[in-house]
Amino acid sequence: MHPTPIDGALLERRLDELYAIGAEPDGGAYRPLYGKAWATALDRVERWLIDAGLSTRRDAVGNLWGRVAGTDNGKSVVTGSHIDTVRHGGRLDGALGIVAGLTAVTSLLASRGRPRRTLEVVAICEEEGSRFSTNFWGSRAIIGGIDHVDPEIAAAMRERGLDPGKIATAARNDIDVFLELHIEQGAVLETSGTPLAVVSAIVGIVHLEIVVTGRPDHAGTTPMELRVDALAGAAAMIHAIESLARSVGRPAVATVGRLRVEPDQTNVVPGRVIFTVDLRHADLQARRALEDRIRSLCATIAGERSLGADIRTLQERAPVPMEREVRALLARAAQDCGVEAPEMVSGAGHDAQVLAARCKVGMLFVPSIGGRSHCPEESTSPRHVELGTRVLARALELLAY
Amino acid sequence: MHPTPIDGALLERRLDELYAIGAEPDGGAYRPLYGKAWATALDRVERWLIDAGLSTRRDAVGNLWGRVAGTDNGKSVVTGSHIDTVRHGGRLDGALGIVAGLTAVTSLLASRGRPRRTLEVVAICEEEGSRFSTNFWGSRAIIGGIDHVDPEIAAAMRERGLDPGKIATAARNDIDVFLELHIEQGAVLETSGTPLAVVSAIVGIVHLEIVVTGRPDHAGTTPMELRVDALAGAAAMIHAIESLARSVGRPAVATVGRLRVEPDQTNVVPGRVIFTVDLRHADLQARRALEDRIRSLCATIAGERSLGADIRTLQERAPVPMEREVRALLARAAQDCGVEAPEMVSGAGHDAQVLAARCKVGMLFVPSIGGRSHCPEESTSPRHVELGTRVLARALELLAY
Repeated sequence: MHPTPIDGALLERRLDELYAIGAEPDGGAYRPLYGKAWATALDRVERWLIDAGLSTRRDAVGNLWGRVAGTDNGKSVVTGSHIDTVRHGGRLDGALGIVAGLTAVTSLLASRGRPRRTLEVVAICEEEGSRFSTNFWGSRAIIGGIDHVDPEIAAAMRERGLDPGKIATAARNDIDVFLELHIEQGAVLETSGTPLAVVSAIVGIVHLEIVVTGRPDHAGTTPMELRVDALAGAAAMIHAIESLARSVGRPAVATVGRLRVEPDQTNVVPGRVIFTVDLRHADLQARRALEDRIRSLCATIAGERSLGADIRTLQERAPVPMEREVRALLARAAQDCGVEAPEMVSGAGHDAQVLAARCKVGMLFVPSIGGRSHCPEESTSPRHVELGTRVLARALELLAY
Repeated sequence: MHPTPIDGALLERRLDELYAIGAEPDGGAYRPLYGKAWATALDRVERWLIDAGLSTRRDAVGNLWGRVAGTDNGKSVVTGSHIDTVRHGGRLDGALGIVAGLTAVTSLLASRGRPRRTLEVVAICEEEGSRFSTNFWGSRAIIGGIDHVDPEIAAAMRERGLDPGKIATAARNDIDVFLELHIEQGAVLETSGTPLAVVSAIVGIVHLEIVVTGRPDHAGTTPMELRVDALAGAAAMIHAIESLARSVGRPAVATVGRLRVEPDQTNVVPGRVIFTVDLRHADLQARRALEDRIRSLCATIAGERSLGADIRTLQERAPVPMEREVRALLARAAQDCGVEAPEMVSGAGHDAQVLAARCKVGMLFVPSIGGRSHCPEESTSPRHVELGTRVLARALELLAY
């Protein structure tokens, strides 16, 4: 086994080039869907694909595809990631998967020539919810999952020469497997000294909104024991939610990220508090059990304090396991490159979870330094970038040659 | 001893009349300093004073004084309260002390004739911070405590024909004692079935601002044990602050009334939380000891969680004890009217705490139904209104006849 050589310096140069597109004056890059920086970045990637000898095309929604036809007929082996970024986004989220995929395929073409199976590199137009109140826009088009186009998005599409009426033509049913290399966006790999992981599943999420109703009282004239303090009650709930998620352990996470107090005055006992809970787990039953415990715990605390507690579900998304045989293939590819890649759960969402509806999917994670992501500090060691790309190339080789 | 008869129905009629001035379409009344409703209300009170045979005058800041000269020379015995209200204010806060004072003096004049000492009824122009970023405006003028007039307030004064340059002339050094009947604004009296209380002291207050600094992290990719969650830490602090104030017991109160989360996103672990603590106690040493414990407790929780916790004092006001001999006099007046009036601490601020710098002060509290105040639901049983007025009249009688 001679792993395909990967040009680490070229990877870094290309990541630098993409990061410069949409650079913001106060740090980071911003490439919102159908914006100017977004279009410039896609043009740059298309130039690289063409230079590498791939044939390119844009689909109706603006996904960019680079293709090298295999000698056999059959479904494609696809790799890539998304080209858009959040505001003040980092250098690697999305960009890494595109640059690594392109570099891996280019290297394979150089070392192994034309593949047996068709290989494709995709720059997915949108994943982040970077501009409109939508996300997974590119991957949803690929699985034929868009049945309504918001007029604002339609207008932005037309500005880029895309016809919203043709979105259905972006759907693919000829993809066999989709592989994506991504940064972890957390600190699990760094903390454990692991250079690479195979994603076992993308967590399911539920977002809850909890409204705690007490009674607004004068902060001076109301003795402690006569209060029905919504914030003191919410604090007890937040404390308990955190303890509960800690006690369940990985991969369970529970986050109270938003909180509003009413009337929010220094000298008034809070009458109402509204907060959100973001709850994730890779196992649907375990996630539901945790949600049930949180609901009952909040009800208990509310009862003890004569508070009201109304809980509603804002959104819910089931966990998506990665394909078993693709996980095994990625683990083998890592071993072939001299590393053990343990499995881990992805706590963040990725295009793979959408594409899983139509093809086999698998993902590789490389460490994020300090766990930072979605910010200018987002960074991964060049040797991990190179390692991830080498393992991706090996996996593509195992699949397509 | 024959207590001066008080016309309870007249009290209620006058309270209704005042409440109708500045009535807001969505409930409650609003009589902001120097506004139209404020001026109308003062005119109405002046009419009542004149009808009762008192001579009236307005001082430079707009306080309205009604006076009946005593047969002896000497300092005045004054009663009254403030005429302004908060937005959506209730029927009794301030208004009760004016109407009761006027009614008590009128009754004394009818039953006892001209007093030995000069009696005055005052409608203080402002106490609530009802319009400008100031409060105790009227009582501060009476003690000669205003050394700067905000241009906005000066303009409003001129619109009402008042000369801001003459504020110093409102200062009085010829007041011997100031008595004020007020609603409790809490639920202590109602809960204990007590119809009347003598205020022992007005609490001291400190307002703290606590900034908890953690690290914003992705809510999906950051395991619980790798988080530095500012809101989870703040929740632990809020929980502990409440427990501490409860354990100290009355009259200690601690309120976290305002709280802001940053970045306040459902899927981001909070990186920063800013909240306030309103801390009150009638004893300065006890208040400071409680503050010290809260500060050290927040530092401990922050230390345990690797959070930063910066605490600063926003404002601080020492407790003001009511004059010992006035308290005894009020207790005796209550006994003369057939009730025991226990002492209690006022958790809210009142003009008496300002006037205490220049004269003896004392206050009576009547129960607030449900503890409600600063809202349209603010209410006190007519028999408690009448009782409070009767005791006030008896105290004035003991002082002035």
